[in-house]
Amino acid sequence: MAAADPDRIYTAALVVIGDEILSGRTQDANLAYLAKWLGLQGIRLKEARVVADDTAAIVDAVNALRAAHDYLFTTGGIGPTHDDITVDAIAAAFGVEVVHHPDAVRVLTDYYGDRLTDARLRMARVPAGAELIANARTKAPGIRIGNVFIMAGVPAITQSMLEALDGQLPGGRPVLSATVAAWTAESRVAATLAAVEKAHPGVQIGSYPFWRDGRTGANFVVRSVDRDLLTETVAALHAALRAEGLEPVDGEL
Amino acid sequence: MAAADPDRIYTAALVVIGDEILSGRTQDANLAYLAKWLGLQGIRLKEARVVADDTAAIVDAVNALRAAHDYLFTTGGIGPTHDDITVDAIAAAFGVEVVHHPDAVRVLTDYYGDRLTDARLRMARVPAGAELIANARTKAPGIRIGNVFIMAGVPAITQSMLEALDGQLPGGRPVLSATVAAWTAESRVAATLAAVEKAHPGVQIGSYPFWRDGRTGANFVVRSVDRDLLTETVAALHAALRAEGLEPVDGEL
Repeated sequence: MAAADPDRIYTAALVVIGDEILSGRTQDANLAYLAKWLGLQGIRLKEARVVADDTAAIVDAVNALRAAHDYLFTTGGIGPTHDDITVDAIAAAFGVEVVHHPDAVRVLTDYYGDRLTDARLRMARVPAGAELIANARTKAPGIRIGNVFIMAGVPAITQSMLEALDGQLPGGRPVLSATVAAWTAESRVAATLAAVEKAHPGVQIGSYPFWRDGRTGANFVVRSVDRDLLTETVAALHAALRAEGLEPVDGEL
Repeated sequence: MAAADPDRIYTAALVVIGDEILSGRTQDANLAYLAKWLGLQGIRLKEARVVADDTAAIVDAVNALRAAHDYLFTTGGIGPTHDDITVDAIAAAFGVEVVHHPDAVRVLTDYYGDRLTDARLRMARVPAGAELIANARTKAPGIRIGNVFIMAGVPAITQSMLEALDGQLPGGRPVLSATVAAWTAESRVAATLAAVEKAHPGVQIGSYPFWRDGRTGANFVVRSVDRDLLTETVAALHAALRAEGLEPVDGEL
């Protein structure tokens, strides 16, 4: 593992692969989990794409994003059935053959014993030159080739693979965030928010309105890599909202 | 509205705009809803991208996807605060100015009366040449320019805007689907699934495994635009799974 440079911004992208997401049948749950996990590693998720079970679409997305970011993750399409085409597509993206990884064959042989069918052995196929990512949950491993990390579609399995990668990927300083909330229409305090952000370079403030029990509120999320700057901005935002006659609270409403 | 050609495949893409999605703070709920809504219109969601609150990222995604698909939807970033940059970014993507749409100014004036601030008036800004999409819920309208539909980030508001577009967009024949499920490891029936799909050109079968109460199951989703072919394939899949000693059921487990 290369040494991390704390002052560098490390970025990642995600390709979610699957007709079941694009048809609306399945609600993706990997993006939000991965985003938070990457945040803890000091890596920023900058872009995600959802593509169909279609080789050309996967190849295009993988090649565009692995070149543009430090890390690229994919989820979905690595099971034993005919609609699982991710490994072949990523091998095509890298211009390499698909091979059976001996360690994966061993893991699956130990797990399935004499129930190891051709279909199950498909889960040992990797792009040539790839390494495995352990999966404590269902054994069939994830795959790493270059800066691309090939994960499962089932969230519990992807989470198990991310556990195996915890602390292994060089990252920079994590983005810290704090939330200030108030019962107000965000439009009422739009100028205030913009002024507080402008007065604190290096901080972003996001405004997320909501409607609940007939009342209008908004959560203001303050983000920075600098803890002192974050604290100072939160205090300034409290003061500015109070000056507008509001009663801001710390944390999400 | 142009006449729809039922034999043509109409495609759409989605750009989800927002740091709150990429940080993992907010779980996107618009993709799945839009996907199902498009399905009912006979339009297939083929690709989605999630991008940051960053003008260049929005411009790149919008220009790539509006050229590649019949329809492009965006969600997020059309509120009254400083982090809402979608309208400016899409105007830049089209190379047009941003103007205040007179009908939107009227809607907001009627709604806010003497509480119409500069921030609220921001929600009447549109790329020059755009039309409005009604929003029965919170008044601030969605925007259509060319084949691009600019929607809100808050799901209830986007759903209200889609209601206004219901039946308005030319589409082809909707993709029909039926689910057959069984308590089995999908790897056990992988060859069966592939054979049934191969024997029925024009049908796709997706396999979605799950684990529940210590048991392994899988949902097999059969998709086609041809109702008779769908019915025939479902019957063939039932027979093939029973031949494997399983007890398939109709519908999702």
